[in-house]
Amino acid sequence: LKFITIAVDAMGGDHGVSVVVPAALRMLKEHADVRLILVGDQVVLQNKLKTYQAQASDKLIIQHASECVAMDESPAQALRNKKDSSMRVSINLVKTLAADACVSAGNTGALMATARFVLKMLPGIDRPAIISTFPTFSGGRMRMLDLGANVDSTPAHLLQFSVMGSVLVSAMEDIPAPRVALLNIGHEDIKGDELVRGTAKLLAQSPVVNYIGYIEGDHIYRGDADVVVCDGFVGNVALKTTEGVAIFIKKLLQKEFSKNFLTKLAGLISLPILKAVSKFINPDRYNGATFIGLKGIVVKSHGGANVDAFFRALEEARFQAKKNIQQLISNKVEQLLLQPSSGKDS
Amino acid sequence: LKFITIAVDAMGGDHGVSVVVPAALRMLKEHADVRLILVGDQVVLQNKLKTYQAQASDKLIIQHASECVAMDESPAQALRNKKDSSMRVSINLVKTLAADACVSAGNTGALMATARFVLKMLPGIDRPAIISTFPTFSGGRMRMLDLGANVDSTPAHLLQFSVMGSVLVSAMEDIPAPRVALLNIGHEDIKGDELVRGTAKLLAQSPVVNYIGYIEGDHIYRGDADVVVCDGFVGNVALKTTEGVAIFIKKLLQKEFSKNFLTKLAGLISLPILKAVSKFINPDRYNGATFIGLKGIVVKSHGGANVDAFFRALEEARFQAKKNIQQLISNKVEQLLLQPSSGKDS
Repeated sequence: LKFITIAVDAMGGDHGVSVVVPAALRMLKEHADVRLILVGDQVVLQNKLKTYQAQASDKLIIQHASECVAMDESPAQALRNKKDSSMRVSINLVKTLAADACVSAGNTGALMATARFVLKMLPGIDRPAIISTFPTFSGGRMRMLDLGANVDSTPAHLLQFSVMGSVLVSAMEDIPAPRVALLNIGHEDIKGDELVRGTAKLLAQSPVVNYIGYIEGDHIYRGDADVVVCDGFVGNVALKTTEGVAIFIKKLLQKEFSKNFLTKLAGLISLPILKAVSKFINPDRYNGATFIGLKGIVVKSHGGANVDAFFRALEEARFQAKKNIQQLISNKVEQLLLQPSSGKDS
Repeated sequence: LKFITIAVDAMGGDHGVSVVVPAALRMLKEHADVRLILVGDQVVLQNKLKTYQAQASDKLIIQHASECVAMDESPAQALRNKKDSSMRVSINLVKTLAADACVSAGNTGALMATARFVLKMLPGIDRPAIISTFPTFSGGRMRMLDLGANVDSTPAHLLQFSVMGSVLVSAMEDIPAPRVALLNIGHEDIKGDELVRGTAKLLAQSPVVNYIGYIEGDHIYRGDADVVVCDGFVGNVALKTTEGVAIFIKKLLQKEFSKNFLTKLAGLISLPILKAVSKFINPDRYNGATFIGLKGIVVKSHGGANVDAFFRALEEARFQAKKNIQQLISNKVEQLLLQPSSGKDS
């Protein structure tokens, strides 16, 4: 059995050790091939473990870190001043190969800046992107990138994102040639801004990517594509709008069902259904966005993650490490760079 | 009583006269101050009216047009070759002041190109924008622009959109200083792309707009802002993603409620609630996007609109004409142009 070692920023996120420790214990229980390094305040971690009748072991290592990056701290400040933060130390463990991946629910900007500074980019990749998984109505899954790591991207960047997304989905979902679509505001060739039209040209020429054309916002959840590619500004707006609409409809249902005695009764009977729907539109189920393009696996749990959601992020890290995502991307990017039309000069 | 005359492209949209004629008849019944000019094939229109035991009158004028713009026709082609299309003739009626506004469910690109060519822009406005209304969870309404008329906008364009949106909301909702927010991917000053940061500077300096700062995608439906401003690419993605998620959740609910006998029973009891929710998330209720910034009111119904939805678009046109939206925007833009920092040179 080959062990997968995951460094965990135990102090990050809105809930810190209260969420990280139980999620870590569950992870060890459910996956025999996992070894965890909990990074954070040693005393706090030991005390928290005690409350679960648990302790450090060769599969649950505590690595002390004296500092903690605040959720509202500026990325530049965290990078400059917090050299012994639980976040930085976790990333260092990936850099030194002591860990195969790291997971943090901390400050996104600081995590991105630190990961990029410490790990560096894969050769041929200019910028890291944030990729995450979404449910589709056909019962499958779709991955979208970039969700906000970059703004003002160029066609060459989006081509790189397409290659990385394609490799990741291929490995994680066992799909030989994932369908890659470009997010646009129409499906005709002439539609879109300069970025999208420039990227479409590069993708159409690229033998590395199974490019299927444009996709519009109302079709991304239909299951028409396995990978949806866009600039980080657009991707972040799509992601957050999705969350906003889901919350809106959830609240509306709650309001309607609590109107009077009869609706309350109906709500009671419908409870399992509403729970199923709620679970499906709950971002927790798909927690674990990844910073892709770095020399190392960095999984970002969202800050407000509960135990279940943080556990999913740990599972995402394990699976990516098992699949050797970094190496697969490197190989593919090499192919891309060998192509005449790599898009580097566009 | 001052009559409001609305020119109606009777052949546009997926359903043409089948939707336009009953919606028009309802409009005349419900609003005594409205006069409609139905533009399209005279024979088809007369026959359709007959099926409703109706006929042309001084309040329901038929204006013959020999051509029709196809839903998939290129805007350039429609503009060049279809000089006697129901769409073009409707817009001409606004140009010659024979009508106070026009409504079409036809091809968006062709409508935009033709309206811009025939009517021209208001002085001080460089490009038209598409603005539409959305429900908010606080029970109010929010308007967002641009929803896809423009891509690759500049800060000066977004400033103009902000002024126009602000004037429209102020008049239509009776709000003295509507709260204008800029769609972004974070709320800190440093967040966003060049466009957003440049626009924020212009808005902060503008005494014409009540600028309240950045808003993120998950907050646009909370009721925090009366006007949300963004580039047409981003706005269109947000709009269509909203539709996609709403359809997704609706289908999910239908699926869950039809699983077995018990869930079907629950669904039956919950039917009024699901209908209420469905109605609320139904874009039809808010049909009637407007091309703002032109010398004339042009309301765009969505192509698949049913009678109810097309009726809403007619009502939107009537209300905008009554409020004299064009004049109000012109006045405000004059103020803006007199300002030293009009953003024209950024």
